[in-house]
Amino acid sequence: MIIATIGGFKCDKKTAKIAEEIGAEIAKRKHTLICGGMTGVMEAACRGAKKYGGLTVGILPGKSKEDANRYVDIPVITAMSHARNAIIVRSADIIIAIDGKYGTLSEIGLAKAINKTVIGIETWDIPGIIKVNSVREIFSIIDNANDR
Amino acid sequence: MIIATIGGFKCDKKTAKIAEEIGAEIAKRKHTLICGGMTGVMEAACRGAKKYGGLTVGILPGKSKEDANRYVDIPVITAMSHARNAIIVRSADIIIAIDGKYGTLSEIGLAKAINKTVIGIETWDIPGIIKVNSVREIFSIIDNANDR
Amino acid sequence: MIIATIGGFKCDKKTAKIAEEIGAEIAKRKHTLICGGMTGVMEAACRGAKKYGGLTVGILPGKSKEDANRYVDIPVITAMSHARNAIIVRSADIIIAIDGKYGTLSEIGLAKAINKTVIGIETWDIPGIIKVNSVREIFSIIDNANDR
Amino acid sequence: MIIATIGGFKCDKKTAKIAEEIGAEIAKRKHTLICGGMTGVMEAACRGAKKYGGLTVGILPGKSKEDANRYVDIPVITAMSHARNAIIVRSADIIIAIDGKYGTLSEIGLAKAINKTVIGIETWDIPGIIKVNSVREIFSIIDNANDR
Repeated sequence: MIIATIGGFKCDKKTAKIAEEIGAEIAKRKHTLICGGMTGVMEAACRGAKKYGGLTVGILPGKSKEDANRYVDIPVITAMSHARNAIIVRSADIIIAIDGKYGTLSEIGLAKAINKTVIGIETWDIPGIIKVNSVREIFSIIDNANDR
Repeated sequence: MIIATIGGFKCDKKTAKIAEEIGAEIAKRKHTLICGGMTGVMEAACRGAKKYGGLTVGILPGKSKEDANRYVDIPVITAMSHARNAIIVRSADIIIAIDGKYGTLSEIGLAKAINKTVIGIETWDIPGIIKVNSVREIFSIIDNANDR
Repeated sequence: MIIATIGGFKCDKKTAKIAEEIGAEIAKRKHTLICGGMTGVMEAACRGAKKYGGLTVGILPGKSKEDANRYVDIPVITAMSHARNAIIVRSADIIIAIDGKYGTLSEIGLAKAINKTVIGIETWDIPGIIKVNSVREIFSIIDNANDR
Repeated sequence: MIIATIGGFKCDKKTAKIAEEIGAEIAKRKHTLICGGMTGVMEAACRGAKKYGGLTVGILPGKSKEDANRYVDIPVITAMSHARNAIIVRSADIIIAIDGKYGTLSEIGLAKAINKTVIGIETWDIPGIIKVNSVREIFSIIDNANDR
């Protein structure tokens, strides 16, 4: 599966730890991680994935691959600013929202507008997303989805 | 000014009446109305604007100008699905959110991510948007912004 | 009809004169002019259109309406760099290519890929576009298309 | 490096053979192949890459990963029709144009507009692209670029 992690380009240490753990769990299961490719939650998730040899795709908003965090294997350079959020969520089988501000909110909206499954941890409280309290819960949902 | 009206492609009569009134008020003030160009709230707002000789721009998600509601003067054909939401909000000086579901939520997120003013009526309760209860309130805010 | 004028953001005086004349002829026929909204051929065409009270739409590549030339009535802010070229040609009923470099070449390709009519003057010699030598020829083709 | 192969969604057997050979050479060098992810030249190039265990990225124009040819490892779903052409060329360090029609022409234009190196084989004769007659020539250029 391709799993998106969405969240802000700035985050506190606690959030980074959660994102890194999520990235690690994605990689352990041999899923591909897709994200916005920048700093903050995106970087933490990619770092976690790379610790376990995962594959990471960064859908970048700017014009340069230099923008990508160092843990992105495949930088996709859209030069489309926030319009690239639509690409991230559409390319993912499941989206995990971690913390995040308005960009993340837009991704939640874009994902739910096309009926994607969004799992949220420490993030916006939007009806239709599956709110969880632990990384363990996220992957019990994902493992179940993958079995079907 | 260019003012965006955002909201669902389906809406009930009460919401359509509000959207139409908002479109009319935009046109009376000689502002340009920009929207997604489709049915529901978008069509009602355009209809209101055209009653008062306003100019309406529809940023269409599909590949054909036939998708535009009949009150769109300028159909802009993006063929970009929901990614066009980013264009609508960026092109507007002020955004008015009316009702709406996940597409509207994504537009609110995209607008606030680039620090745009969003006024909301009967819509998502998101911190950072100006919630109002009447069309009159919307235009007292807009008229004030325009004076500055 | 909505007619696109495409061409470079830099051009010599002779090319600017042609572009301005084309913009004027578009406006005299009450067609809407759509273009990339920037300098060079785009600005000259818009200037021509505004001399005759035409309506001009600029599909801007950047993030700010300040980028638009002063003759653009409706700046559409895509923040999508060259990807906005696809929007310009898809939104037009007919495309007029005037001079231009690689950006213009991409627009010719994008237009022909979706079977649009492209008329070229002093521009790339690409099979499938209608090459003409005068502004008069352009509008005899457009007037014919409009009659059908 | 990330290397793009661009070309039509339909091609004859001779062209497919060239594309497949190019894909194979990309994979042998451990470069990542990026393309439009569809049939024709794109599929042949991906097939060649997968024969040698390469990594293939498909930047899809439609809304579904089912559109991707079977040799695409990472389908990126843009739902942006031809506007996705801009993403393909911007994400690549070097672009190889193989045969192709107007879509390919647009990609050549988009690539040269941002000063990318484009190598062409059996394709459009556009000034600024490096025309070659053999796959061997392509990779002597690429190997040189990679050494710098």
